[in-house]
Amino acid sequence: MIVKVTVTLKNGVLDPQGRAIEAALKGLGFDGVAGARVGKLIELEVADGTSRETIENMAKQLLANTVIENFRIEMP
Amino acid sequence: MIVKVTVTLKNGVLDPQGRAIEAALKGLGFDGVAGARVGKLIELEVADGTSRETIENMAKQLLANTVIENFRIEMP
Repeated sequence: MIVKVTVTLKNGVLDPQGRAIEAALKGLGFDGVAGARVGKLIELEVADGTSRETIENMAKQLLANTVIENFRIEMP
Repeated sequence: MIVKVTVTLKNGVLDPQGRAIEAALKGLGFDGVAGARVGKLIELEVADGTSRETIENMAKQLLANTVIENFRIEMP
């Protein structure tokens, strides 16, 4: 089964990628861009029956740096 | 308003990040991981009334490499 883990920076954490995108969009002439934040969308193909707890452990141990990032799990 | 643009690799395109995550999860002892694909989730804060077409142009010109990536737009 496919499980989706979305990893995003916590509020208040500087997002250099987002800043770069914001500046580049303005440079391309797109007005009205007030901000951009970039996160990761990780799609895991795991064995059926894998528990949410196991996915949380994967996120805490590897997929997200929980000091500066939040993660959200979408199970099928 | 906040618009979400999800950028993912097209099928068949090698995903080195995904491979690295898959190998690392196995190395941490997580069994049953058959694959991992990594994409980007870009949250744009844009002026109210910005059209979907404008967001599509942003994606085509900057946010996604449409040769190897697909993008999906979620408007509020």
